[in-house]
Amino acid sequence: MLKTGDDHLRGLRDGRVVYLGSERIDDVTTHPAFSEAARTVAHMYDLKRSTALLDVCSYKLADERHSAWWLPAKTKDDLRLRMQCSKAVADMTYGMMGRTPDHVNGFVTGMITDPSVFNTEKYKFSENIVRYYDYCRDRDLFLTNAVLPPQAARDPDYYTRKNLPVPTLKVIRETDDGIIIDGMKMLASSAVLGDEIWIGNLLPLAPNQTNEGVTCAIPVNAEGLRLWSRQPLSKNTPTEFDGPLAWRFDETDSMVMCKEVKVPWERVFVFDDAVLPREIYIRTAAHNYGNNQSNVRFLSKLQLIVGVCSKIAYSSGANEVPAVREVLGRMAAFEALLSGAIHGQIEAAEEWPAGYMVFNRRMLYAALNWCTEMYSPIIDQLRELCGGGVFQLPANTTVMHDAEMREEFEKYWQTPQMAALDRMKLFKLAWDLVGSEFAGRQQQYEKFYAGAAFIVRGHNYREADWDFFHGIVDELMNSYDVSVGDCLDQKRDGGEQR
Amino acid sequence: MLKTGDDHLRGLRDGRVVYLGSERIDDVTTHPAFSEAARTVAHMYDLKRSTALLDVCSYKLADERHSAWWLPAKTKDDLRLRMQCSKAVADMTYGMMGRTPDHVNGFVTGMITDPSVFNTEKYKFSENIVRYYDYCRDRDLFLTNAVLPPQAARDPDYYTRKNLPVPTLKVIRETDDGIIIDGMKMLASSAVLGDEIWIGNLLPLAPNQTNEGVTCAIPVNAEGLRLWSRQPLSKNTPTEFDGPLAWRFDETDSMVMCKEVKVPWERVFVFDDAVLPREIYIRTAAHNYGNNQSNVRFLSKLQLIVGVCSKIAYSSGANEVPAVREVLGRMAAFEALLSGAIHGQIEAAEEWPAGYMVFNRRMLYAALNWCTEMYSPIIDQLRELCGGGVFQLPANTTVMHDAEMREEFEKYWQTPQMAALDRMKLFKLAWDLVGSEFAGRQQQYEKFYAGAAFIVRGHNYREADWDFFHGIVDELMNSYDVSVGDCLDQKRDGGEQR
Amino acid sequence: MLKTGDDHLRGLRDGRVVYLGSERIDDVTTHPAFSEAARTVAHMYDLKRSTALLDVCSYKLADERHSAWWLPAKTKDDLRLRMQCSKAVADMTYGMMGRTPDHVNGFVTGMITDPSVFNTEKYKFSENIVRYYDYCRDRDLFLTNAVLPPQAARDPDYYTRKNLPVPTLKVIRETDDGIIIDGMKMLASSAVLGDEIWIGNLLPLAPNQTNEGVTCAIPVNAEGLRLWSRQPLSKNTPTEFDGPLAWRFDETDSMVMCKEVKVPWERVFVFDDAVLPREIYIRTAAHNYGNNQSNVRFLSKLQLIVGVCSKIAYSSGANEVPAVREVLGRMAAFEALLSGAIHGQIEAAEEWPAGYMVFNRRMLYAALNWCTEMYSPIIDQLRELCGGGVFQLPANTTVMHDAEMREEFEKYWQTPQMAALDRMKLFKLAWDLVGSEFAGRQQQYEKFYAGAAFIVRGHNYREADWDFFHGIVDELMNSYDVSVGDCLDQKRDGGEQR
Amino acid sequence: MLKTGDDHLRGLRDGRVVYLGSERIDDVTTHPAFSEAARTVAHMYDLKRSTALLDVCSYKLADERHSAWWLPAKTKDDLRLRMQCSKAVADMTYGMMGRTPDHVNGFVTGMITDPSVFNTEKYKFSENIVRYYDYCRDRDLFLTNAVLPPQAARDPDYYTRKNLPVPTLKVIRETDDGIIIDGMKMLASSAVLGDEIWIGNLLPLAPNQTNEGVTCAIPVNAEGLRLWSRQPLSKNTPTEFDGPLAWRFDETDSMVMCKEVKVPWERVFVFDDAVLPREIYIRTAAHNYGNNQSNVRFLSKLQLIVGVCSKIAYSSGANEVPAVREVLGRMAAFEALLSGAIHGQIEAAEEWPAGYMVFNRRMLYAALNWCTEMYSPIIDQLRELCGGGVFQLPANTTVMHDAEMREEFEKYWQTPQMAALDRMKLFKLAWDLVGSEFAGRQQQYEKFYAGAAFIVRGHNYREADWDFFHGIVDELMNSYDVSVGDCLDQKRDGGEQR
Repeated sequence: MLKTGDDHLRGLRDGRVVYLGSERIDDVTTHPAFSEAARTVAHMYDLKRSTALLDVCSYKLADERHSAWWLPAKTKDDLRLRMQCSKAVADMTYGMMGRTPDHVNGFVTGMITDPSVFNTEKYKFSENIVRYYDYCRDRDLFLTNAVLPPQAARDPDYYTRKNLPVPTLKVIRETDDGIIIDGMKMLASSAVLGDEIWIGNLLPLAPNQTNEGVTCAIPVNAEGLRLWSRQPLSKNTPTEFDGPLAWRFDETDSMVMCKEVKVPWERVFVFDDAVLPREIYIRTAAHNYGNNQSNVRFLSKLQLIVGVCSKIAYSSGANEVPAVREVLGRMAAFEALLSGAIHGQIEAAEEWPAGYMVFNRRMLYAALNWCTEMYSPIIDQLRELCGGGVFQLPANTTVMHDAEMREEFEKYWQTPQMAALDRMKLFKLAWDLVGSEFAGRQQQYEKFYAGAAFIVRGHNYREADWDFFHGIVDELMNSYDVSVGDCLDQKRDGGEQR
Repeated sequence: MLKTGDDHLRGLRDGRVVYLGSERIDDVTTHPAFSEAARTVAHMYDLKRSTALLDVCSYKLADERHSAWWLPAKTKDDLRLRMQCSKAVADMTYGMMGRTPDHVNGFVTGMITDPSVFNTEKYKFSENIVRYYDYCRDRDLFLTNAVLPPQAARDPDYYTRKNLPVPTLKVIRETDDGIIIDGMKMLASSAVLGDEIWIGNLLPLAPNQTNEGVTCAIPVNAEGLRLWSRQPLSKNTPTEFDGPLAWRFDETDSMVMCKEVKVPWERVFVFDDAVLPREIYIRTAAHNYGNNQSNVRFLSKLQLIVGVCSKIAYSSGANEVPAVREVLGRMAAFEALLSGAIHGQIEAAEEWPAGYMVFNRRMLYAALNWCTEMYSPIIDQLRELCGGGVFQLPANTTVMHDAEMREEFEKYWQTPQMAALDRMKLFKLAWDLVGSEFAGRQQQYEKFYAGAAFIVRGHNYREADWDFFHGIVDELMNSYDVSVGDCLDQKRDGGEQR
Repeated sequence: MLKTGDDHLRGLRDGRVVYLGSERIDDVTTHPAFSEAARTVAHMYDLKRSTALLDVCSYKLADERHSAWWLPAKTKDDLRLRMQCSKAVADMTYGMMGRTPDHVNGFVTGMITDPSVFNTEKYKFSENIVRYYDYCRDRDLFLTNAVLPPQAARDPDYYTRKNLPVPTLKVIRETDDGIIIDGMKMLASSAVLGDEIWIGNLLPLAPNQTNEGVTCAIPVNAEGLRLWSRQPLSKNTPTEFDGPLAWRFDETDSMVMCKEVKVPWERVFVFDDAVLPREIYIRTAAHNYGNNQSNVRFLSKLQLIVGVCSKIAYSSGANEVPAVREVLGRMAAFEALLSGAIHGQIEAAEEWPAGYMVFNRRMLYAALNWCTEMYSPIIDQLRELCGGGVFQLPANTTVMHDAEMREEFEKYWQTPQMAALDRMKLFKLAWDLVGSEFAGRQQQYEKFYAGAAFIVRGHNYREADWDFFHGIVDELMNSYDVSVGDCLDQKRDGGEQR
Repeated sequence: MLKTGDDHLRGLRDGRVVYLGSERIDDVTTHPAFSEAARTVAHMYDLKRSTALLDVCSYKLADERHSAWWLPAKTKDDLRLRMQCSKAVADMTYGMMGRTPDHVNGFVTGMITDPSVFNTEKYKFSENIVRYYDYCRDRDLFLTNAVLPPQAARDPDYYTRKNLPVPTLKVIRETDDGIIIDGMKMLASSAVLGDEIWIGNLLPLAPNQTNEGVTCAIPVNAEGLRLWSRQPLSKNTPTEFDGPLAWRFDETDSMVMCKEVKVPWERVFVFDDAVLPREIYIRTAAHNYGNNQSNVRFLSKLQLIVGVCSKIAYSSGANEVPAVREVLGRMAAFEALLSGAIHGQIEAAEEWPAGYMVFNRRMLYAALNWCTEMYSPIIDQLRELCGGGVFQLPANTTVMHDAEMREEFEKYWQTPQMAALDRMKLFKLAWDLVGSEFAGRQQQYEKFYAGAAFIVRGHNYREADWDFFHGIVDELMNSYDVSVGDCLDQKRDGGEQR
């Protein structure tokens, strides 16, 4: 099934409980803090099923069309379809929304490439995950997730020692038909805009944290669930013109607050386990699909940034300056490098898990590391190209509504290369990339997209074939040795004879 | 005279014409876009003359006390006083306001260390500058400046070729008692909060831009002068708690729009000249005083940042982690390095111009270059320490006004190290350094504080004693040579004999 | 034909004139400055035709087998074969020799994908290039090149003004059966080890430098040609153990000194032209093949480096330290990123020139830029892992030949993880990557492999599809505008209504 | 007493046991691996007492003149003298020798600013240190040190667990008149060129490593002591012209091998203690004097580097290129920044320990951190300026001895700015900074001068006044709060009213 935008908006009016500070939001599709983002997601659902994108964004199973994000890949062409769909979706937000439906949906899709992972000695949940996948795919739901403990709660011993309640979400009770979870989980980006929240753990747990190790799924309107949203980012954006990215693409982040939320067994995937919660991502294609999407999304963003860099240079004629051209060439190189590292994941795709294929894992994590390291310097480079231009603009576009001011504005702010209003529009857009609060959130977000740097590098360490690398050194070192005659005599005269 | 804060506020209600978009501001001291910043400046005037700071921030001349920024330095102690005053003033805004009164006031004070620079073959303006200095000092005025052409206008030929009006401010007429200036000049930071605007040129002019080369001073309420302010930065800051820096320290940037503004001769300092406009800064102590202030101001800011870094680490116990300690040690090293480079400017002070002393110029420009290069990585480091914590906060403090939410907030957001509200307060402050729009402006500002990087490095190139550096190489290279016997024979056996 | 190693060595004893300082070398295959490198190249020819590598390194044409570097690619599989061959060859030197036969051979092979480029109005040289290609392929020759003017000669006007001879090689005479070239050309790496030298120009020429613009090929033993080699790098390497890379892989760099060297017309490819000399590389697949080889070669090197990094960490147990693991993970990420960017060049291969395929050009240049930027920091990272260990070794291995010293050495230098001699061997190898003169040359070489940074970024700028990037920005900016009602009223109450 | 160079050389012929591999060196003053460096040190002693430098490098005590490095500083002028002496000494080697006499001599001098530190409950060694200081000062000895365990030995538990001998030097026996030490200690730079070796510990010891915690001094010719030198670095330098820095300034590094070396009690300073060995450096002025010297030495080196950068640019006219000028300006800024941070240490000197003064400690460690971080990028910058020029030179200077080659060389290698031989000389010097093995050692050395980065940052962390930094944040945060009325109402209309 390919849901329409209207379907999706309708689904958001489901009685969900969302708070902005102490203000309870009745309808996220109409409240100004969320309505534009909701509209963006709805539009995404419509575009995806439009004639232009139908083939790129969906596939046929039996007689039904499904969104491509639900496709478990068995061939390189399947991987290509997944990737193209992610690119099309990312292009719709210029990569500004990270938690579009393809992300967590991709995780869940990846999990059915090896459902056996979900069976332990005590619990057999493999059918749960397959059925949940079917359920979501057939309704084309938008899954989001909350898979991190609150920042402060990462060392649970601290709390115990200080006799404080550990704030992390955990199972507090078990019943015949399900479990009861309670506590706080972060950081449910897009949750207010989606249908479901996947609850899990991406970070290692202490061996005794089996209650925290629960993995399950709940609808956003589950009883007892409240979302505490962070502040919306578009407050300083009186009109779309003033901050076009903040205006449309604030996906929001929420703390998930559960007060005795009931989860039926069929929605439980890991239970009473401190190890498996992380492994389900990396022992199946889950992490692979989800992070290829993140690579691709970053590429869309980078393409916008490269375009803005060049336009900014063009707006003052600076694109004729050799040093500026060098910078632009370097930015273009960044884009092509990432694009190469993404395409290479298909050329070097891996046949794994049995019967399926995944994007080359090492290349994927390598690209993830690159994105994490490079967003700050890339934005800093755009900042440099902007110079003081961002401060020279009038406070807002109302000058265009006053005939005299408008004349003045158009006369004084134009350049030989660009009309005044176009420059203002361009610099406002650039500012939404480098200086607005929306830009600030993006910089923070990309740096911690996949956790702290050591986590991303940990993935790279884990996946590296160290035997291969050691083998190179060993082969070289085994090809020569200190021998009996191996001494200074061997190469007398500073190397002239031997 | 040491002006009071009330005096200063009164002075701002002088009929000045300030626009926010098309909205004309009647009174900057009460309009929410400017009132807090105005109050900050007024408070600065009061603090400066308080008992606690009187000795640090002022000096006695005849029987009158003047603010220390008016002191032309003849001894190292004078330099120390200037520096301490700058530090005290910078501390009042944690370095967040760059155009505090000591900055441009320092430029003008520096100019009277060699007024002869203002005399050319055609014009003798040395008395003008001295009298203007006396006028400002005796009223303890707050001078600001606008010394850059609009970004787009830097290549005037372009405009001529395309038959467009060059937007830069220039002299359009000369009369018996003065000159008439017209056009746009940027970027008058703090102008809406100050008394006077110094009009000049810090960038090189083309030889034929003699009309643009005018240097003069006008009161902010000059007839024909309008300030077009950029957008205020505190819009997304509903309360002081939400963005304490944006709330108080948005010094504003304005485009200076002159429509036939009359300037009497006694306020003209350079006229009909394309070279002298820049030289008055570097052939006197002007640039020196102004940029030592900027070094010192950056130090205040850095001290706040180092404190916040450490507090953030402390709030989660991360300060116990060796890798985090290493980062904190490095941040502290940055602070001490800059402090060292500032103190060194006094230890190695220069006796120049005749009868006066300046801060060591090469060290000053070196520190300026360091600040320009380092602000982005420093902020990026703080960003890294913040992690995702900045997104985990409720949207605003209204949760504190709802008993149930408050209880929940205090329970779940506390850490063993810090209460929930304190954490929120700390992270809101940190966000105002790394992520808010105020933070965005600061990042752009520090990078372009002294113009593009090549300009700052140009100062360093210009002041470097290349003969000294070449002399070192020459001395070394002259101490050995290729001689007749100088060949491979000399050191046979790979160096074993000679 | 697949030449043997012995064939190759025989070919090097052809009367070529090579100088080391004023010493004339009679036989490069036996002189200690060159013999080991010559043996390495010979071994490469043998390995390449061994059973193990035959399929990876050669292809069949009619009934003849040719080295894969001669294959003009018509399919992705052809590209894969070229790449695998380059990888196999690079692995033989751990990427330490840049001018292996696949490099310039690849350039010439690339040129026959569009020989028409060599035809101008005046000269029709398309047949020359095709025949020369056949000639080289059928003999499996090792081509090298000299395509840069001497560093000092890049601004010929300088010389003219100062009345100095321009040192660059140029055509000084034309005869019936050929041309006479004279002057100096750089930097013929591996020329003393190869069969032919391709003379050309990779950098732009001034419009009047038509005589310098000649492109032709000469055998290394051409009459009038002398090679002035730079100093060999293995002087401080008394035994292979002390510097295994320097010992085997010093490919040498030579200045090409031509004194009236005659070139018959059939070996002339561009004549009397200042533009075409550069274009033959980028209007055919030449630059593409040659630079994919350089990407692949860098990858081989990086794989050795990653292995050494890990081994060094292992030798002291440091691989158990989280911070060290993070570094190793990052190094592995670098390797996988480059590998991805190389594989992506096939996934996104381009059908060009007509009838042929090339590696994706933008990704190729992007990888080239990455390599150029990253070698220094990568080596610096290895340097950091080595710590002071490289200074703790005895001066050389002779301690192993003295029973008492050996006992002491083995007792004191061992670690729980590694025997003393193995540690010494490992650190000597690491030193040959970070500290020896061989290492120094590699660091200089990689930074300037493709010319200065601005040249590499220039390739990236040239190949970027700026219309594509601008189109993204335009599409976004065209989707909203300032409208009549577009003013502050639109979003009153700080964003709460609209 | 001010020793002469001849005195010093005589002192080196004292029967000391030095090994180069298995070769035992009879006389370091004549063996080619050490003779030039020995001559450099001797020359240093002579220069220091020459009329030109006498006042800068010595002071009078009673009627005796002593080298300034022996001066315990009581005033800023004393600190200035110490610093000037260090600068004069560093200039003699262009900062290439780190272990000149002022370094460890400075440590010992610093220790007598508070001898009480050497008294513990069990041992009263305060008189030992004072007498030892007197002894050394009165003979103007050259002290060196070995204060690190062998790299591999840092985790002694490993050895115990694996039943391996811990290689670190330790006390193995105690006698009436002294102690017996045995084992290996690193990294005694310059020890073969000096008079004494200070044995101690700069790194933390495990609590049970009291035997390893011994601190004492031994003459270089102590019975049972052997120095195993690393390989000399000038092997690839047939003449001084080819590597002027390697030729003169290879200070050598040695492993100190003690076989039952007897140390009389009066030369023991710390005994049977695992904590005090480190504290003696930081609870007295020791670390302070020694590290100010290292800051100053780095400055000398940087001045040479800046000079070479500029000369290289000049040699091809590149100094006229704006982008190159920007680089040179930046390099000059680095030099002035460090110079500032050094001078600042005097302006902000601290009165400590009681009765004495030290260089500002935080600024000193900050400068140390900067040097550690910056040497690699600085050298990389020079590398970039050199381009391929370093590979274009003939193999050696013998071309100057062949009339025909010389003519050719002078014709082809000259530039309009510089004669061929001068260019060769300059690039050979540059190569000795960026590419030779000597350069490689310097890059390794500066990075680990003060231990790994975390150690240097640890000093900065330790000395930072965290209460001061926290106080700034607290003061700011205490100045506002969430109040009852503090909610969204307060700033309605997006900030327009309050």
